Amino acid sequence: MNFQQYHYNRPFQLENGQTLENLTIAYHTAGTLNNKKDNIIWVCHALTANSDVFDWWAGLFGENDLFNPKDHFIICANVIGSNYGTTNPLSINPATNTPYYRDFPTITIKDMANAHQLLAEHLGITSIHLLIGGSLGGQQALEFTLLDKLKVDNLVLLATNAVHSPWGIAFNESQRLAIEADPTFNDMTEDGGKNGLIAARTIAMLSYRTYSIYNEKQKDDHSVYTDFKASSYQKYQGQKLANRFNAHSYWTLSKAMDSQNIARNRKSLENSLAQISSKTLVIGISSDILFPPTEQKIIANHIPNATYTEIESLFGHDGFLVELKELNKILNHFV
Amino acid sequence: MNFQQYHYNRPFQLENGQTLENLTIAYHTAGTLNNKKDNIIWVCHALTANSDVFDWWAGLFGENDLFNPKDHFIICANVIGSNYGTTNPLSINPATNTPYYRDFPTITIKDMANAHQLLAEHLGITSIHLLIGGSLGGQQALEFTLLDKLKVDNLVLLATNAVHSPWGIAFNESQRLAIEADPTFNDMTEDGGKNGLIAARTIAMLSYRTYSIYNEKQKDDHSVYTDFKASSYQKYQGQKLANRFNAHSYWTLSKAMDSQNIARNRKSLENSLAQISSKTLVIGISSDILFPPTEQKIIANHIPNATYTEIESLFGHDGFLVELKELNKILNHFV
Repeated sequence: MNFQQYHYNRPFQLENGQTLENLTIAYHTAGTLNNKKDNIIWVCHALTANSDVFDWWAGLFGENDLFNPKDHFIICANVIGSNYGTTNPLSINPATNTPYYRDFPTITIKDMANAHQLLAEHLGITSIHLLIGGSLGGQQALEFTLLDKLKVDNLVLLATNAVHSPWGIAFNESQRLAIEADPTFNDMTEDGGKNGLIAARTIAMLSYRTYSIYNEKQKDDHSVYTDFKASSYQKYQGQKLANRFNAHSYWTLSKAMDSQNIARNRKSLENSLAQISSKTLVIGISSDILFPPTEQKIIANHIPNATYTEIESLFGHDGFLVELKELNKILNHFV
Repeated sequence: MNFQQYHYNRPFQLENGQTLENLTIAYHTAGTLNNKKDNIIWVCHALTANSDVFDWWAGLFGENDLFNPKDHFIICANVIGSNYGTTNPLSINPATNTPYYRDFPTITIKDMANAHQLLAEHLGITSIHLLIGGSLGGQQALEFTLLDKLKVDNLVLLATNAVHSPWGIAFNESQRLAIEADPTFNDMTEDGGKNGLIAARTIAMLSYRTYSIYNEKQKDDHSVYTDFKASSYQKYQGQKLANRFNAHSYWTLSKAMDSQNIARNRKSLENSLAQISSKTLVIGISSDILFPPTEQKIIANHIPNATYTEIESLFGHDGFLVELKELNKILNHFV
């Protein structure tokens, strides 16, 4: 995919009242816009992903996949707060000429959607053939659609919600408390809070996976009384994220996830969903404990032209990234 | 209840090969042993509880409860590692004349059971009318029975397991990583790791409760985009534990929970359970994600004289402490 950055040169208004100066939006594209301009697939990425969809959703997006650059013009923008090219806590704060770090403002899902809209306008996009996203990406896709500034023909929402749950917020709060327990988070450095981030990621893994999958993949024999495989797995996953991410971005994005509530400053949740005219497919993962299927059913029940499909999986929330065979089947049928 | 401490004056052999000098076992009793010595109820407490059963299991244990000191001689011993009177990481290490802190040895559930046995011998107890425990307490009750040094007439195991799951170990590992993210844990002080402990407890809360209960009790109205009730709840619960516990004990006890595997150094899990002749009642909580009912069913399936009962509850693992009405009904019928 091709990496580009769009520099918006006016103040960007945030939902919390503050403005972000010098907003940069990083994005990847693949393929070419056709003459009828009706082959755009816009992908919204999840918490710690980037805008290179061919990288993290290979098997669904790629040269020879269902969503490929021969047939489609594929675009994905990195969200505000993420450290993959868009303005984030490590960017320079024009007010101080140093990185923001903990001074980075609170970002909401609606802010992310507004930034997507700026990019769409910059690219001259007024209509999207397929808008798709899972988890935090689905939250954005929903808000992006609700902005109602461009035509979304087909909308696919995976393992996501219209209002983030108290349970999901509590999971994120525990992760932030783990980061805060690491006092280097206040050091105003790039590596600040690294050990906290490691712990935080391991907590997130518990919410992304299931009892069954840990049981299947991390079981020890009966002789062990300490240093279990499950412990090594947690440490490995924590370190792996810490090698490619930072605590400041993670903090910001977890707060953004918490902010998801499409009823905020609108009439109601039901009324908001009823406004969506896109042909919509909502996909749940049977074993998802973080965004349980009940949350996707609410969305599907209130969008007029929506259907709900559930993938039977032991993988929990991660199923939306892992269950590629099933996703190909469902999406091939839908588009 | 009456608080006492028993001082064992020989080296106490631990499963990991080390010995613990000057072992002190704190315990509470209530009621009087009858002439036939057949009215003993021995309670094993859970992770952060103490030996004062009337305090943390009121409604089931108390002056006017089902298990009362008029009819029964009730005893509960504080486990090794816990900071309620039994030898723990804040105790003086005779080798250095300073507290153990991080040098406290790895304790297993079997070590806890061996300490219970020492106390039973000290008190001249050779037979128990009812042995009961939930969670870590159930793990001890199972090991205590398997020592096969005294007669257990009735055994009640709640929300517990015979082998701790990779999922449960992963939950505990995330909690330890949160404690480790707090560098004061290495300070060798009583308060070391306090912020880590706060984060750890909030992670544990997620495993003790459920999506439904958070949804029911911590929901905000639609106007909020930050500082949610669920966040406050997590912080409150974390701080509450940190006010009465310390990171060193918590660390030690979480490792002990991980160690639970009744097949270690025995023929097999099935064979071990088959040796138990006590009349046994195994109780599961329908919504328990930490010790799911499948784990209690395994126990009940392999103990010859066992029955399994499940309590329908939204409270998850905490149901074994919270669902007192149902517990009274079930236990009144059993004993």
